[in-house]
Amino acid sequence: MFQSFETTADPTLGAGRVGDLRDFMKQANLDAFLVPRCDEHQGEYVPPSAERLRWLTGFTGSAGTAVVTTTKAALFVDGRYTLQAPAQVDTRTYEIVQVPAVQPTDWLIKHLAADAVVGFDPWLHTVADVERMTAAFKPKGLRLKAVSRNLVDRAWGRSRPAPPEGAVSVHPMKYAGVAAEDKIAQLQRRLSDASQDACILTLPDSICWLFNIRGADVMHNPVVLAFAMVPAHGKPELFIAAAKLSVEVKAYLVKVGRLSTPDQLPKRLDALKAAGKKVRLDPDTAAYWLVRRLGGMKACSIGADPCTAAKAIKNTAEIKGTRAAHIRDGVSMVRFLSWLDREAPKGHVNEIDAAKQLEAYRAETGQLRDLSFDTISGSGPNGAIVHYRVTQATNRRLATGELFLIDSGGQYPDGTTDVTRTVAIGKPSPEMRERATLVLKGHMAVATARFPKGTRGIELDPFARRPLWEHGHDFDHGTGHGVGSFLSVHEGPQSISRRGMAVLELGMLCSNEPGYYKQGAYGIRLENLVLVTPLETVGSGDRPMMGFETITFVPFDRRLVAVDLLTSSERAWLNTYHARVAALIMPSLDAVDAAWLKAATAPI
Amino acid sequence: MFQSFETTADPTLGAGRVGDLRDFMKQANLDAFLVPRCDEHQGEYVPPSAERLRWLTGFTGSAGTAVVTTTKAALFVDGRYTLQAPAQVDTRTYEIVQVPAVQPTDWLIKHLAADAVVGFDPWLHTVADVERMTAAFKPKGLRLKAVSRNLVDRAWGRSRPAPPEGAVSVHPMKYAGVAAEDKIAQLQRRLSDASQDACILTLPDSICWLFNIRGADVMHNPVVLAFAMVPAHGKPELFIAAAKLSVEVKAYLVKVGRLSTPDQLPKRLDALKAAGKKVRLDPDTAAYWLVRRLGGMKACSIGADPCTAAKAIKNTAEIKGTRAAHIRDGVSMVRFLSWLDREAPKGHVNEIDAAKQLEAYRAETGQLRDLSFDTISGSGPNGAIVHYRVTQATNRRLATGELFLIDSGGQYPDGTTDVTRTVAIGKPSPEMRERATLVLKGHMAVATARFPKGTRGIELDPFARRPLWEHGHDFDHGTGHGVGSFLSVHEGPQSISRRGMAVLELGMLCSNEPGYYKQGAYGIRLENLVLVTPLETVGSGDRPMMGFETITFVPFDRRLVAVDLLTSSERAWLNTYHARVAALIMPSLDAVDAAWLKAATAPI
Repeated sequence: MFQSFETTADPTLGAGRVGDLRDFMKQANLDAFLVPRCDEHQGEYVPPSAERLRWLTGFTGSAGTAVVTTTKAALFVDGRYTLQAPAQVDTRTYEIVQVPAVQPTDWLIKHLAADAVVGFDPWLHTVADVERMTAAFKPKGLRLKAVSRNLVDRAWGRSRPAPPEGAVSVHPMKYAGVAAEDKIAQLQRRLSDASQDACILTLPDSICWLFNIRGADVMHNPVVLAFAMVPAHGKPELFIAAAKLSVEVKAYLVKVGRLSTPDQLPKRLDALKAAGKKVRLDPDTAAYWLVRRLGGMKACSIGADPCTAAKAIKNTAEIKGTRAAHIRDGVSMVRFLSWLDREAPKGHVNEIDAAKQLEAYRAETGQLRDLSFDTISGSGPNGAIVHYRVTQATNRRLATGELFLIDSGGQYPDGTTDVTRTVAIGKPSPEMRERATLVLKGHMAVATARFPKGTRGIELDPFARRPLWEHGHDFDHGTGHGVGSFLSVHEGPQSISRRGMAVLELGMLCSNEPGYYKQGAYGIRLENLVLVTPLETVGSGDRPMMGFETITFVPFDRRLVAVDLLTSSERAWLNTYHARVAALIMPSLDAVDAAWLKAATAPI
Repeated sequence: MFQSFETTADPTLGAGRVGDLRDFMKQANLDAFLVPRCDEHQGEYVPPSAERLRWLTGFTGSAGTAVVTTTKAALFVDGRYTLQAPAQVDTRTYEIVQVPAVQPTDWLIKHLAADAVVGFDPWLHTVADVERMTAAFKPKGLRLKAVSRNLVDRAWGRSRPAPPEGAVSVHPMKYAGVAAEDKIAQLQRRLSDASQDACILTLPDSICWLFNIRGADVMHNPVVLAFAMVPAHGKPELFIAAAKLSVEVKAYLVKVGRLSTPDQLPKRLDALKAAGKKVRLDPDTAAYWLVRRLGGMKACSIGADPCTAAKAIKNTAEIKGTRAAHIRDGVSMVRFLSWLDREAPKGHVNEIDAAKQLEAYRAETGQLRDLSFDTISGSGPNGAIVHYRVTQATNRRLATGELFLIDSGGQYPDGTTDVTRTVAIGKPSPEMRERATLVLKGHMAVATARFPKGTRGIELDPFARRPLWEHGHDFDHGTGHGVGSFLSVHEGPQSISRRGMAVLELGMLCSNEPGYYKQGAYGIRLENLVLVTPLETVGSGDRPMMGFETITFVPFDRRLVAVDLLTSSERAWLNTYHARVAALIMPSLDAVDAAWLKAATAPI
């Protein structure tokens, strides 16, 4: 199993651990200390050794910050976690505060005396972070002070897990499509064009993409935790723990670049600084520690991580890979939905059973390397919790008359999948059908959008919402995020959302996942992945248009479609889509599942 | 007539005038000089005394910059003017350069030697402008130098017109809705809340709105060119030429604030600076001169013009006024369209005739104070020029089988209008009907949009484009701009466009004007004004939604509606709209026009 369903938080430990931390704060003459949920690489997942926030507070969410002063402590979480945080954390020790309404800086300004000193770990905050905090603290006279060793690590002591040493593998050319040497040469040309002497990479998925390697250092994202330095000329240098490299992988990597251990990075930065080199760093993702070592922002060259935009645009081999992965994953999903339809009405299937069964079908493909993320398996009211994670404590039976929402994905060597379906257990209510149909209409409006060159995700997001808006509904998350190639399931720069200012380019892979959530009752989300298609002439149109090609092939629950709410072209789209699902998936099914799929994809 | 149709540019004068300017540049030791098309107030229209760009180059567009070096000269214009500029300007003297692809700074960096000095008039560039230029010039070593008197004015000499002294009038409470004293008190509370001691206002429409006055200093916008200083406590001070004030207006204004002449402004700034006051200025609109006088940006308090956002939200009296103005204007438009339908097919109406006739109908209301802008009256291919201005040289007959586009508006004491209709002269082609129907579908998609609190114009703009995108078309302008209350026809902060990041608020007035342009053939634009409506529950919806109320009442040409392209709800919207036009406008028409309107608004 790639997922556990345990309740890992223990609120009773919070008070004692904060006391230990305060002892170290006192020794360091600090009035407050910041504990963000991140590691040196700012990825979505962190290794156990970097789960400082969880150790200190018990909170297991994927984003949050604890702030501890000599007398008070607070945990800052966003809207997703306002229910989860109080359940996991000792609320006598921690005040739970919701961002962005109140930021940690606001809270500190309110609770600290002027001239107080706020400690932070310079490896865990980006340059942009530190600049924002410095500006916010200035009027009150608060000072930020970087510590040389994280105080939580000192309090944690010997029980802190060792940093991960997951084995690195080479991502083969048949899936990568472009050799690492070619990617590196292209990056080097860009550095030369910008008169930059070198670039420091800190994002694990950027490094994996550039060097065509994959790793096993964190959950669900097959990334390697490492740093890299790419000079404008000459060989790039990868700073990576030797224990992660087999003989074969080492042999591959020494052809591509130089191999060093992470402890050699400071020395290399000092040399770049001494030589007056112009070093490019991404202020939004690079640790403040790096910039400080290079002599501060003025000594560095500011620029977004140069791999992010290149990585987002999938090449022919990556597209071929992701198509294959999606058909394979579609077979598993169809087997699962067929099983669910047989078993759930009997009343004995619960959310954990469902998640396990789906993982089992994916594992039977023989190609599953990991889940893309913890499966969201929510029945009834649990479906309304957007980032729900089922545990033994929250586990519910799938009951007749309720909706069941399952959002999941697989990491395959040729591609990453992410798919959500909402299924009626028994007969859905007319309201459920109406809301599900509105979500489907939004989904189809995005799937069928045509748009000119230069269009940004923010300009497509409203299409997903309009059918809901017309009926007085909305959903509180973006419509779509970028997806990697056997890499992170969430990647930028593009997103179809209210914040999606990146232009959509040919070859970008995005999710299309509008939803509707009725708190305490049910949740609906319908998600396929879509690929941005080339500019093409439309009929007698003047201007070529781009569009999307849907590459996820799983039927939508026909019982949740109110046909009278569909236009004739929406109905046609749904029938065409279902016919294509049947054509692609049927050959891989046994007779029972084939019969189920035939019915599930029958025209409406 | 509020509009002239003369060709005012004379390209033959360019070379000599540049020579005169260069003499003054030499005296001032400048290697280059910047001549933007703007005055000290950064408004859309400038008085004749500030038409420096036109005097120097012959170019009459509403945006552009000339850059003159000792040996070269260039005129920078945007895409709207790439045809007009070469026709108006001596292209042996001026290179025509298109922004934003190449900016004046790029061109200067290319053409000047390192250490060259670029002169500019500190009254004609904003703080933000000067900061951008300074940053751009830095790597090359170019220096910016403010001149104490504009070199164009020195070259222009005695033939330069005097600054305008248009009479100021009081904008009565029945139209303004809120007394100037109350607006000022509210602004002062905001200054106090932000710990700002005073605020300098430089935008003419902000000053007119705040003091409830109107003026006659520039074309089409009934604004007063003046400055104002509003302290956090005490009376505001208006810096205005005494000649603009009648005894009555003076009597009104001295109750509201202190009256000073513009030449007293520097002394007042010096006093604020000496007293260490925190003075708020808008870096995007305030002249660099003001900031420099106050001791530079660090001495000032940065903040958007505080009137802009308040002015955009219309109060009850303003809404009542604009409704009345729109019905009055609708009557004129209907009379015009009825006349056009009778006369144009005879083949003797040209674009200027049409613009004159429409202005005559508006003038007959007895309430027309000005046009909102020069009427865009374009037949056939001229309709495809988005910012077309008809002159004797370009004037065309309205011919059978062609489309005619007319975009116009009136300034009435109770409101500003802006309306565009596209009319078929004779029988339109199937292509014209199809394209016009797509534009109408986009227009209706905006008119009927419902959206939650917090929605920005950028999120509604795609609705106007989708029907065109689906058929491979688009248009190269925003869908809508803010409109003033007997003030500027273009006002911020809201816009329904790709740049529309301001949140739409209850009471904002916007245009809704998608289009389609086939170069060399015809243009289509359909424009109504819409008012943002309050949050309301929709059916059984969970979340209240805002929307738009259309307040322009003029029929759309039924001959250009391809009914088979409309959904049933679109068809219903159009019929309901036309029924409302008939109900509101019919009572003010004579029998002939009433018969025309009855046919023009018959259900389809």
